[in-house]
Amino acid sequence: MNLNSLDKILTSVASGKTTVDDAIESLKYLSFEDIEYAHIDHHRSLRKGFPEVIFGQGKTSDQIIGILEKMMMQENIVLITRINKHNAEKVTSHFPDIEYHEDANMAVWKKHETAMQGKGTIVVLSAGTSDIPVAKEACLTAKYMGNNVESIFDVGVAGIHRLFDHKELIDKATVLVVVAGMEGALPSVVAGMVSKPVIAVPTSIGYGVNLGGLTALFAMLNSCSSNIAVVNIDNGFGAGYMASVINRV
Amino acid sequence: MNLNSLDKILTSVASGKTTVDDAIESLKYLSFEDIEYAHIDHHRSLRKGFPEVIFGQGKTSDQIIGILEKMMMQENIVLITRINKHNAEKVTSHFPDIEYHEDANMAVWKKHETAMQGKGTIVVLSAGTSDIPVAKEACLTAKYMGNNVESIFDVGVAGIHRLFDHKELIDKATVLVVVAGMEGALPSVVAGMVSKPVIAVPTSIGYGVNLGGLTALFAMLNSCSSNIAVVNIDNGFGAGYMASVINRV
Amino acid sequence: MNLNSLDKILTSVASGKTTVDDAIESLKYLSFEDIEYAHIDHHRSLRKGFPEVIFGQGKTSDQIIGILEKMMMQENIVLITRINKHNAEKVTSHFPDIEYHEDANMAVWKKHETAMQGKGTIVVLSAGTSDIPVAKEACLTAKYMGNNVESIFDVGVAGIHRLFDHKELIDKATVLVVVAGMEGALPSVVAGMVSKPVIAVPTSIGYGVNLGGLTALFAMLNSCSSNIAVVNIDNGFGAGYMASVINRV
Amino acid sequence: MNLNSLDKILTSVASGKTTVDDAIESLKYLSFEDIEYAHIDHHRSLRKGFPEVIFGQGKTSDQIIGILEKMMMQENIVLITRINKHNAEKVTSHFPDIEYHEDANMAVWKKHETAMQGKGTIVVLSAGTSDIPVAKEACLTAKYMGNNVESIFDVGVAGIHRLFDHKELIDKATVLVVVAGMEGALPSVVAGMVSKPVIAVPTSIGYGVNLGGLTALFAMLNSCSSNIAVVNIDNGFGAGYMASVINRV
Amino acid sequence: MNLNSLDKILTSVASGKTTVDDAIESLKYLSFEDIEYAHIDHHRSLRKGFPEVIFGQGKTSDQIIGILEKMMMQENIVLITRINKHNAEKVTSHFPDIEYHEDANMAVWKKHETAMQGKGTIVVLSAGTSDIPVAKEACLTAKYMGNNVESIFDVGVAGIHRLFDHKELIDKATVLVVVAGMEGALPSVVAGMVSKPVIAVPTSIGYGVNLGGLTALFAMLNSCSSNIAVVNIDNGFGAGYMASVINRV
Amino acid sequence: MNLNSLDKILTSVASGKTTVDDAIESLKYLSFEDIEYAHIDHHRSLRKGFPEVIFGQGKTSDQIIGILEKMMMQENIVLITRINKHNAEKVTSHFPDIEYHEDANMAVWKKHETAMQGKGTIVVLSAGTSDIPVAKEACLTAKYMGNNVESIFDVGVAGIHRLFDHKELIDKATVLVVVAGMEGALPSVVAGMVSKPVIAVPTSIGYGVNLGGLTALFAMLNSCSSNIAVVNIDNGFGAGYMASVINRV
Amino acid sequence: MNLNSLDKILTSVASGKTTVDDAIESLKYLSFEDIEYAHIDHHRSLRKGFPEVIFGQGKTSDQIIGILEKMMMQENIVLITRINKHNAEKVTSHFPDIEYHEDANMAVWKKHETAMQGKGTIVVLSAGTSDIPVAKEACLTAKYMGNNVESIFDVGVAGIHRLFDHKELIDKATVLVVVAGMEGALPSVVAGMVSKPVIAVPTSIGYGVNLGGLTALFAMLNSCSSNIAVVNIDNGFGAGYMASVINRV
Amino acid sequence: MNLNSLDKILTSVASGKTTVDDAIESLKYLSFEDIEYAHIDHHRSLRKGFPEVIFGQGKTSDQIIGILEKMMMQENIVLITRINKHNAEKVTSHFPDIEYHEDANMAVWKKHETAMQGKGTIVVLSAGTSDIPVAKEACLTAKYMGNNVESIFDVGVAGIHRLFDHKELIDKATVLVVVAGMEGALPSVVAGMVSKPVIAVPTSIGYGVNLGGLTALFAMLNSCSSNIAVVNIDNGFGAGYMASVINRV
Repeated sequence: MNLNSLDKILTSVASGKTTVDDAIESLKYLSFEDIEYAHIDHHRSLRKGFPEVIFGQGKTSDQIIGILEKMMMQENIVLITRINKHNAEKVTSHFPDIEYHEDANMAVWKKHETAMQGKGTIVVLSAGTSDIPVAKEACLTAKYMGNNVESIFDVGVAGIHRLFDHKELIDKATVLVVVAGMEGALPSVVAGMVSKPVIAVPTSIGYGVNLGGLTALFAMLNSCSSNIAVVNIDNGFGAGYMASVINRV
Repeated sequence: MNLNSLDKILTSVASGKTTVDDAIESLKYLSFEDIEYAHIDHHRSLRKGFPEVIFGQGKTSDQIIGILEKMMMQENIVLITRINKHNAEKVTSHFPDIEYHEDANMAVWKKHETAMQGKGTIVVLSAGTSDIPVAKEACLTAKYMGNNVESIFDVGVAGIHRLFDHKELIDKATVLVVVAGMEGALPSVVAGMVSKPVIAVPTSIGYGVNLGGLTALFAMLNSCSSNIAVVNIDNGFGAGYMASVINRV
Repeated sequence: MNLNSLDKILTSVASGKTTVDDAIESLKYLSFEDIEYAHIDHHRSLRKGFPEVIFGQGKTSDQIIGILEKMMMQENIVLITRINKHNAEKVTSHFPDIEYHEDANMAVWKKHETAMQGKGTIVVLSAGTSDIPVAKEACLTAKYMGNNVESIFDVGVAGIHRLFDHKELIDKATVLVVVAGMEGALPSVVAGMVSKPVIAVPTSIGYGVNLGGLTALFAMLNSCSSNIAVVNIDNGFGAGYMASVINRV
Repeated sequence: MNLNSLDKILTSVASGKTTVDDAIESLKYLSFEDIEYAHIDHHRSLRKGFPEVIFGQGKTSDQIIGILEKMMMQENIVLITRINKHNAEKVTSHFPDIEYHEDANMAVWKKHETAMQGKGTIVVLSAGTSDIPVAKEACLTAKYMGNNVESIFDVGVAGIHRLFDHKELIDKATVLVVVAGMEGALPSVVAGMVSKPVIAVPTSIGYGVNLGGLTALFAMLNSCSSNIAVVNIDNGFGAGYMASVINRV
Repeated sequence: MNLNSLDKILTSVASGKTTVDDAIESLKYLSFEDIEYAHIDHHRSLRKGFPEVIFGQGKTSDQIIGILEKMMMQENIVLITRINKHNAEKVTSHFPDIEYHEDANMAVWKKHETAMQGKGTIVVLSAGTSDIPVAKEACLTAKYMGNNVESIFDVGVAGIHRLFDHKELIDKATVLVVVAGMEGALPSVVAGMVSKPVIAVPTSIGYGVNLGGLTALFAMLNSCSSNIAVVNIDNGFGAGYMASVINRV
Repeated sequence: MNLNSLDKILTSVASGKTTVDDAIESLKYLSFEDIEYAHIDHHRSLRKGFPEVIFGQGKTSDQIIGILEKMMMQENIVLITRINKHNAEKVTSHFPDIEYHEDANMAVWKKHETAMQGKGTIVVLSAGTSDIPVAKEACLTAKYMGNNVESIFDVGVAGIHRLFDHKELIDKATVLVVVAGMEGALPSVVAGMVSKPVIAVPTSIGYGVNLGGLTALFAMLNSCSSNIAVVNIDNGFGAGYMASVINRV
Repeated sequence: MNLNSLDKILTSVASGKTTVDDAIESLKYLSFEDIEYAHIDHHRSLRKGFPEVIFGQGKTSDQIIGILEKMMMQENIVLITRINKHNAEKVTSHFPDIEYHEDANMAVWKKHETAMQGKGTIVVLSAGTSDIPVAKEACLTAKYMGNNVESIFDVGVAGIHRLFDHKELIDKATVLVVVAGMEGALPSVVAGMVSKPVIAVPTSIGYGVNLGGLTALFAMLNSCSSNIAVVNIDNGFGAGYMASVINRV
Repeated sequence: MNLNSLDKILTSVASGKTTVDDAIESLKYLSFEDIEYAHIDHHRSLRKGFPEVIFGQGKTSDQIIGILEKMMMQENIVLITRINKHNAEKVTSHFPDIEYHEDANMAVWKKHETAMQGKGTIVVLSAGTSDIPVAKEACLTAKYMGNNVESIFDVGVAGIHRLFDHKELIDKATVLVVVAGMEGALPSVVAGMVSKPVIAVPTSIGYGVNLGGLTALFAMLNSCSSNIAVVNIDNGFGAGYMASVINRV
C-alpha cells in the first residue's frame, strides 16, 4: 500500500463515500510490508554516511562494473572489498575516479570526501606482517565511514615490548581493532591494557594447526579479558564497520 | 495499533474532526508490528489442529505443570516431549487426564480426539531396537496431528531381507519417516524403493565414531537417493511434524 | 528369470513333460533378483516423468556425450547438473537441442515438453546473490519434473522487510525451497511464516567460519521451526527433486 | 622501583654523593616492571566502578567465601557468576547482604548502589526461554556496571512478528546484546533492523547438531549484517561487560 | 510364498485346472520377500556356530533377562557385551548357568561347549593395562566362536623390546587383533613384523587429545603397514568376530 | 653382525685363540639389529610374491624412474599407485614393458606372470561410477599379489535390487572388498548377506558433508554388521593387499 | 638368551664338544629380544633417579595399593598422578609414609630424599588460578626427579604487567614450564622474553569454545616464538618430566 | 629513552641546573618501553648466534630481496624457510653468496661460519621419504645455530628393525628431533629407547584421515613416553630451533 491508496481511502471516508467499517476492512488487510518499506526508506536516510559495499571475491570485473553503475546513481560512497589486482585494474580503467588500495585488496568510489562522523579515534593494531591486508581493510573501512583512524602494525606477542612502545596511542583510542593470526593472543594483551572496547579479528594466516584461522578465533573468544568481542576470520571490513558503529554511540 | 485505534482515527476522519493529511500522518507511522500481530492471530487460526509442544528436557515437573496450566485454557492438544518417567509421574498425578507414553518419552493432553487431517498414510520405519524411542516420538506426533500412522521397527540394513517383508506397507505410504543410528543407511535404501518423500532422522544411538549421531546425519545427507530430506539428530518430533505438514499438501 | 523361462517351465508342467517336483526344484532356485528386476521395471514405469540425471562435476565433455547418447534412446528428459561453461559448449555443439542454463550450471535435453504433474506451486527463495546458482538448480529441477515454480531471490535476514514484501507469493506455495549460505537463518524465518513444508538448502557460500557450508547446515538443522527438513550443502537438485515428490503427494 | 628510590638516587646525585655514571648504572637496571606497576595502579583507578568478578563454576562455597573476604576490603562491588543454588545459599547465609539471582546463577555484593555511568540504554534480547539465564547474566552485569538496562525475552526468529512488537524499544538502544541458541539467527535479524552495535551471545542450549553452541556461534560470526561482534558461548557476563564498555565510549 | 503354495499352483497347472497364463500371473506377483525369507533361513543355517549377541550397554537387567529368555529357546550360545557388574549379578542370579567375565564386561550363556571352527590361532595383543577390557572382549568373542586364542597384554611401543619377547607367539598367529589407545601405534609395529592380517582396535583410553579414541583410530587408518584393517573404537567384540570370520576362510 | 663375523669369533674360540670370556664380551655387545636384519631378510623371503610398491602421488616421473631402476634389480614385480597419465606416459616410454592402467591410476612392471597364491576368490564391489578407480586399484593389487579377482561395479544402495542380481558371485567370494563414497552404506548391506570377511573402503567421492570421505568412513566403522573392517579413505591398494593376506590364511 | 646360556655354548665350543657350525646354528636363532632385554636392564640402571608413575585416574584405591605393593620392592620413589582425595585417603591410611598433595591430585612414596640431578632451575608459570593443579603436578614431578623448582602462579596475559614483576626469576630459569588454559597465550609471551626452552602445557580449564583445551593447545602450537614445544592437555606430569630431562642435558 | 638522555638529565641534576623534583617528573614519565628497549638490545646481544629468519612462503622474490637487504646490515646469518625453487633462483642470482638447499626449501646467507655453540649432538630422525624436507629443515636450522647435527632418514615403524640398526647414534644424542607423518608413531618408539629430550614434528604427509597432519600431531601428544614435546605440523624450523636452545642448556 502506498500513500496514494491510503489517501484515496481516507478521502473517501472523509467524503462519506466509504463507511468507517469498510475502511477498517480495507486497512486491516493492508499489507504491512508496504508501510515497512516506507519505514525502511526513512530508516536508511538515518543511516546516511554508511558506505555501500560490494564483496568483490568471486565476482568478475564485468559484474563489479555492472553493480557499480547502478549504485553510483544512488550512493555517495561505495567500497569494493576483496578485489584482486587484475579486476581492480579493469574496474579503475573503466571508472578512473576509483581509488585502488592494493595492500588492502580494496577499491573505493566516492562522490565527495566523507564527513567526520565518529567522535574519537579508532586504533587498528596487527600482530604479524602478513596480517596487514586484513588490518588495512579495517582501517580503510573505518576511515571511509568517517572516523579518525590510526594504526600500529607488526606488534606480536613474541616481542611484547614493541607493543608497549605505542602505549600512548593505545591509551588515546576510543575503540580498538586488533588483528592477529597464529596464536591470536594480541587482543587479550591489548584488552588487558585498556578499558575500551576491543574488536578482535582472527586471520587465516599461519600453517599447521592454525586451521584456517579457527585457532586464533577460538583463542580470542576464550580471552581472559572481558572487553573483547570477535568478528569472523579475515573480516577486516566487519571489524572496521563495527568499530565505526561503536564510535558513533 | 489495534483495531480500536484504527476505528477512532477513521471515525474522526469521517466526522471531519481529523483531516485526511493528519490521518495519513498517523497511519504512516502506524507500526506494522501491530497489524502483523493481528495478521498472525488470523494466521494461527488457519493452523488449528497443530498441537502446542512443551520441550520437557531440562524442565522441572513444576515448570511443566505451570506451562500446562496456561496452555490448557487456549489449546485443544498439548504434547510434552523428552519427559522422563519421574517427571511424567508427577505431571500425570497432577493432571490425571494426561497420557504418558514411556517408550516415546512423551506425554499428551487433549480436550477431545484429534480429527483426521492428513490425506494418506505416514509410515515410520526404524533400524535398531534402540532407535525405537525416537521412532515412537515421530509416530505419536504424527498421530496427534491427525494422521493415519503405521510403523515398522527393527529393519536395519544388516538384515536387508526383513525390510523387503514389509514392501507392501512401504508402497502404501504417502510420506515415510525413517529413523536410524549407527551407519544411518536405512533411509537411502528405503528411498530407493519408493518415489515418495522420505524424512530421515539420525539418532545418537551407537558408540565409537557415531559421534553422537553426526555420522548417521552426514550419511543421510550424502544419500545417493534424492527423495530424502533430513531433520536434526534424535528429532522424532520434528520428523513427525514435517511428515504431517507434507501429508496435508 | 524372465517371463519366457517361467512360461516354458509352466507349459512343460502343464504338458506333463516336467513333474511338479522338478518344477518346484527349478523355481525354488529361481533367483528372486529376476522377479525383483521385473518388479522394478514396473516400478520405474510408475515413476514416469522423473528426469534422469547426469552429475556433470568431474566428468569430461566426452564422457557426458557418451552417457547422453545411451540415455537419449530410453528417456524423455535428461538433466545434466554441475556442468561448467566449457563442457556445456562442447555438449551443446554436439547436441544442438540441449539447452544450457549457465546461471544454474545445468543443461537439459528433452524430447517434448514436461507434462504438469505437481498439484500446487513450489516457491524457491534464496538469501544472497551468490546463492542464486543453487536456487536456480532447484527451480529448474522442479520445473522439469512438471511443477509450477516461482522464485524470490536476494531476501536475506539482514533486511528482513524485503522478505515481507513477498508474503502473498509465500502464502501461495504448497512447498517451499529456501536456499541460504552464511548464517543460514532464512529457512527458520520463512518456516515461521507458513504452515507448509520447507526444504532448506545450505550453500557453501561465505568465508571464515562458514566451514564450506557446515555452519548454515547446522543452523538449519537446529531451526526452532518444525516444518523444515534439510538436504546436503549446495544440493539444489536434491531440494528441487524432494519438493517435486512432495508436490505430488 | 618506586618514587622513593628514584628520589633517593637523584638527591644523592644532586648532592654530589653519587656520580652521574653510578646513577646511570643504577637507573639502567631499574626494572621497568616497577614503573609499569605504578602505571597500572593509576590505570586501575581510572577503571573505578568496574566490579570485580569471581567465576563461581568449579569453586566450593568455602573457596568463594575466602575470596570474598579479601575482595570486600578493597572493592565496592563484587559479582559471582555461575554460582549454583547450593553454593549461593551457603554464601548468602555467611554474608547476608549478598543478593542471589537464581535465574542468572549470579550473586552480588555491593557497598552502595552503583552510580550510573553509561550514557544510553543497553537492550538485552533473547531467543528462547532456555536462553534466559545467559541473558539475565548479561542484564545484571550491565546493570551493576552502572547502565540503564532493558530486556526483551523469548523473541525467536520462528515467530519473527513478536520481535517487531518491540521495535520501539529496540530503536531506543545505544547498544544491544542478543542471546540465542539453536540456529543463532536472532542477532542477524536484529542487527539488520538497527544501526547500533550488537553484541551476539551464542548459548549451548539445544540438542543434536547444536554442538554445545558452536552452531549458533558460527552462524553469528557468519552474519550478513556487519554491526555484530560475538563473545564466547554462554558468556552473558562478557557480553554485559563489553556492552558497558561501549556504552561509556 | 512358501513351498506349499508353489506346490499347489504347480499341481493345479499339471492337472490342467490352472492355465499356464493364470499361473504366470500368480507367480509374477509372488513377492520376492518370501523366497528371500526362505533363502535367509537356509543362509542362517549355514552360519551355525555364530553366537547371538546382546549389546548390554543402556539396557536394564530386566530387559536383558527378557531377551535372554527368548533367545535361549533357539540359540546354542548367547554373548552379552558391555554389561556392568550390577546388571551381571542380577542376570546371573536369575540364570545361574551364565558366566560373567568382569574384566571384559561380558557374560556368556551356552548350551554346550563351542566346537573348534577356526583353523589357526588368533593372537590378541594390547598396548596398555587400561586397554585390557577391550582386548578381553575380543579374546572371549573369538573363543566362543570356536577359535584357539592366545593373548599378549601390556606391550606398548614406549617399551618396544617387551613386544619382541613375544615374537614366537606373534609369528604363530593366523590372524592378529591389536588393541591400543593413546597414540595407537602398536598395530603398525606388529603389522610390520608379520605377513598375516591384523585387525586394529582403537580404544577410548587416554586423555587430552585422545579425543575419545579418534586419535588412535586415525593413526591406525594411516598406518604405513598395509596388512591392517580397523574396527570401531572400543569394538573388541567386532574385532574378535572379524578375526573369527577370517580364521574360517 | 653377519654370519661371517660370528663364524670368525666361534672358530677363534674353538681354536683356543679367544677365551670364552672375551667371546662373551664380543657377543654381548653384538648388536641385535644385525641379527634382526638377517632375520628380516629370511622373513622377506617368506613373503615372496608380495609386490613392492611405489606411491606415485607427489613424485616426478624422474623420481619414479630412478626408484624403478633400483627396484628392478631385486624385485619380480613392482606396482606404482596414484600415478597420473602424464607421469605414466613418461615412465612407460622409458620402460616399455610397464603396463599402465589409466582407470586405476596404476602402473605395473613384472618379470614374469604372478603365480596364483590365494586360495579362494576375492570379489570387489563398488557403489558409484566415481568409486571405480579406487575399486580398480584394489582389483589390480589383489590380482598382482596372485589372487583370483572378480568385480561388480555400480551397485549402490539406492537401487538395492541391482546388488541382488549378483548374489551368486557374492556368495562365492572368500573375501570381499566393498568400495563406497557418499553415505558409505554398501559394505553394511553386503556384510549382512554373507558370513565372509568384508574389507570396506570409503572414498572421497561426493560433495557437501561427505567431508572428503570421513562420512563414509565413519558410517562403515559404525556398521551394524560385525564381519567388516575398514581401511583408509581411497586406499584401494591397502584393501587389495589386506584381502590378499586374508586369502592366504 | 641370557649370559649363562651364551657361556654354556661358548664353553662347549671351546672344549670342542660343539662344532662351530652347530654353535652358529644356535646363535643364529638366538632371539635378539633376550639380548635387548639385558640391554634394557642396563639402560634402566642408567635412568636411576627417574620415579616410577601410577596413573591414578580410573583406578580404585585397591588397585593402586596392589600396584604400589609390587613397586615398593624395586623402586626408590613412586608418583601417583590424578588421584582424588577419596582414593588418596584410603591409600595413605594403608601406607602412612605416602605424602598426598591435594592441590596437585598427586601422591608420592619415596625411600629417601631425591638426590639433586638437574643442573639449573626449572621455573613453572601458570596463567589462571584454575590452572594451578596442573602447574603443581609439573612442579612436584620435576622436584621428585631431582630438580630445583620455582613457581609463579596467576600471571595471565590480561594483566601482563604482573608477569614482568617476575622477570628476574624468569631470566634465571634453565627450562620453563608454562601452563595456561583459555586462550593459551602465556607461553608465547614468556618465550618471547627468554632464550631458554619453554614447555607449554594447555589446560582444559575454560568454557565455550575452549573445546576441552584444544583451543589453548592449538594456540600454543601456533606460537610465533620458536623456543616452545607442547605436551598434551593437562599433562603437568609430562611437562615436569620433559623439563627434568632437558635440565640434565 | 636512551642513555644519552639519561646522562643529560643526571648531569643537569648534578650541576644543580635541574631540581630533584623536576628530574623525578621527567623520569617518572620516562616510558618504560625505552628502558625495555635498551634491555632488549642488551638481551639480544646475549642471544648472539641466533640466526634471523624470513618465512618465505607467500612472499615474492622481490619482497624477500628487500627484507634481506635490510637484515644483511645488522645480522651475521639469515635463514629463509619455505622458499620455492623459482624464488630461490631469483634471490640467489641477486645475492650470489646465498646457498639454496632445495631438499629443505631453505636458503641461507651468512657473513662467516657459525661458531659451535651447542654442547652435544642433535640427532634428527625421519620416518618416510616424504618427511625428508621437514627433517632437512630441522637439520639445517640446528646446524646454522651452531650445533653438531646427525641425521637418520627413512626409519618408519613398519620396519622397526631399521631403527635399531642406528641405536648407537641414537644413544649418542643429547637432543633428538623425530619427524613423522602418517600414524606419527616414530617419536614414541624413539623416546622409549632413550632418556633424552625428544622434539616430535608431525608432518602433513599422507592421505585420507591424515587430516593434514592432525592425526600425527594428536598421536604424538598422546605418546605413552614422557620425554616428548611436540611442535606444529611441518615445523622443521621450530624443532631445530627448540633442539638448539635445549642443546645450550
